[in-house]
Amino acid sequence: MTKKTIAVLPGDGIGPEVTRAAIQVLENIARLHDHEFVFKEGLIGGSAIDEKGGPLPLETKEISAASDGILLGAVGGPKWDRLPGANRPEKGLLEIRKALDLYANLRPVKTYSALIESSPLKKEIVADVDFVIIRELTGGLYFGEPKKREEIDGETQAVDTLLYKESEIKRIAERAFQAARVREGKVVSVDKANVLESSRLWRETVDDVHDSYSDVELSHMLVDNAAMQLIAQPTSFDVIVTENTFGDILSDEASMLTGSLGLLPSASMGSTGVGLYEPVHGSAPDIAGENRANPLAAISSAAMMLKYGFGMEKEAEQIEAAIEKVLAEGYRTSDIAAKTDDAVTTTEMTDAVVKAL
Amino acid sequence: MTKKTIAVLPGDGIGPEVTRAAIQVLENIARLHDHEFVFKEGLIGGSAIDEKGGPLPLETKEISAASDGILLGAVGGPKWDRLPGANRPEKGLLEIRKALDLYANLRPVKTYSALIESSPLKKEIVADVDFVIIRELTGGLYFGEPKKREEIDGETQAVDTLLYKESEIKRIAERAFQAARVREGKVVSVDKANVLESSRLWRETVDDVHDSYSDVELSHMLVDNAAMQLIAQPTSFDVIVTENTFGDILSDEASMLTGSLGLLPSASMGSTGVGLYEPVHGSAPDIAGENRANPLAAISSAAMMLKYGFGMEKEAEQIEAAIEKVLAEGYRTSDIAAKTDDAVTTTEMTDAVVKAL
Ligand SMILES: CC(C)[C@H](C(=O)O)[C@@H](O)C(=O)O
Ligand SMILES: CC(C)[C@H](C(=O)O)[C@@H](O)C(=O)O
Repeated sequence: MTKKTIAVLPGDGIGPEVTRAAIQVLENIARLHDHEFVFKEGLIGGSAIDEKGGPLPLETKEISAASDGILLGAVGGPKWDRLPGANRPEKGLLEIRKALDLYANLRPVKTYSALIESSPLKKEIVADVDFVIIRELTGGLYFGEPKKREEIDGETQAVDTLLYKESEIKRIAERAFQAARVREGKVVSVDKANVLESSRLWRETVDDVHDSYSDVELSHMLVDNAAMQLIAQPTSFDVIVTENTFGDILSDEASMLTGSLGLLPSASMGSTGVGLYEPVHGSAPDIAGENRANPLAAISSAAMMLKYGFGMEKEAEQIEAAIEKVLAEGYRTSDIAAKTDDAVTTTEMTDAVVKAL
Repeated sequence: MTKKTIAVLPGDGIGPEVTRAAIQVLENIARLHDHEFVFKEGLIGGSAIDEKGGPLPLETKEISAASDGILLGAVGGPKWDRLPGANRPEKGLLEIRKALDLYANLRPVKTYSALIESSPLKKEIVADVDFVIIRELTGGLYFGEPKKREEIDGETQAVDTLLYKESEIKRIAERAFQAARVREGKVVSVDKANVLESSRLWRETVDDVHDSYSDVELSHMLVDNAAMQLIAQPTSFDVIVTENTFGDILSDEASMLTGSLGLLPSASMGSTGVGLYEPVHGSAPDIAGENRANPLAAISSAAMMLKYGFGMEKEAEQIEAAIEKVLAEGYRTSDIAAKTDDAVTTTEMTDAVVKAL
């Protein structure tokens, strides 16, 4: 019997509903495999601002740091959109990434054949898509200093800084090569080396790290070209590794390929061993509380936690298989249903997954 | 009779072939409408490095500055890929943008119904796509200082700077609102205001400028969401305005929608009245000199020069109509042909356009 403590940060909008679904699945996995999962809940995002005055209360930081893995729902919503930058829901997410040094964001993009028809792309383009984007998450344009506004000669200007140290690039490159080894052995490193100095250092450093992973095939691609190739030939990719901002844009672009944003999980991992697992989709305030949200991305994120955080490969596969099964059986929440009438609720979908386990 | 001097910068790869095609079309337009176009050729990019030691020789700068409009082919190629940053072909492009203050890059994205089948996206998603991306081209992450490498505590780090002054944002926002007025009247301003200080200034400034264009509908969208919406609902856009780097990525992403990269033109305009017109596609060194390149993007760029640079709307429309006609008649260069056997050459395609004028 393995005991694990899981920090649960439901957040805003549909966050609470989908994390509840993931917990239900995890509890069943625990029962089936005789594990003990202890869940500790914490506030984050808008709900934390409302109750505690800030998007990442100290208590949440402590619960998270002391856990074996963090399950997050989603943050943000129109209610908090007019708050100043430092006190917005998203700030909670940025802070927890930095506080726990979660520098590697993994976003697998994989076509579920049952859902291929709902992709905006043609079937022949997206069939068999299966790659992972590894986004650097604690450096680059998001966190570099100076990041400020100033008056120069009576005019306002604003500055952000894209900064990378060699060591930051090295560790994310290593993650990428390691991931490629247990996949198809191909890494594409994405940068803008024809314009950015940071990209030139990125490219050189990735090349250096590659010397120790010469069994993995490495190529470099400019970010504008990558934005094209993701659409033109998404099946050509295996592992993509890139800078924080480029990764933000490209991974959201990639999330559209499979036609099932509501199914995509993500993992953010770092140096401490504690990872953060969350759906790619946002807080969807328009359908919050209506029992209509698709819980599969949160459930799939929980599976990533089992696999990458706890080394429970078998349990993770069991969840993935259950998801494929319910999709094959025709269960569809409203986001992926052909007709809204046929859609099942969040709880019905979750129960179906539990039954399929 | 109107006389115009046109600087022609063929550049590298297929650049010379496609600019030659554009010149042929312009000469015919001149003849038909009794204009006089004087063409002055200059070196840029890799060929300039080879012949003059740098990607933007002084002579080219002078020819360009003294012209009424600049027609550019494409720059770059593997031959020059190992040169240091300051002496690469692309540097010529960046320098001429800065030297002539070409701060507004216009990239229309429009579906040609004859080519809709070659899009990677489903027909129902891309039919009737018709928007323009207005990318800020002389500021932001491309040109901000510091942009350098340094050793800190024995470790190398590299820095780029995303800097915007209010006045830079103001003038590009004005372009966007003006463009929207003669289109569908809708501007989407794309930024990353939840993370970047420069984006928050961007958003506020665009809002301020909007006060003088209240007949135009304005909304703001985060760049990651924009990367999704371009695929999910491309027909929802009319005018998109955004920062230099975001524009680079999003406009290349958008160029894939119509399935006809080889047809997309661009215009870069500034404060001096001299604009630079170039195809969106690159130098395609693999097919250079084979008379296989698609000349339509260069021809269409020439049409943009007539329209935006010289105020010759009728002439521009005549070229656009000729392009539509040859496509409808089934002329296809190899990049857009269903079977390579049926493809016409660069010169055949150009002759067909001239005949259709
Ligand atoms: C909410 C926002 C700050 C965040 C980011 O930009 O990193 C989100 O878009 C993401 O990708 O996780
Ligand atoms: C060649 C390169 C420097 C250039 C850019 O990034 O601006 C190109 O990608 C473009 O979009 O015109």
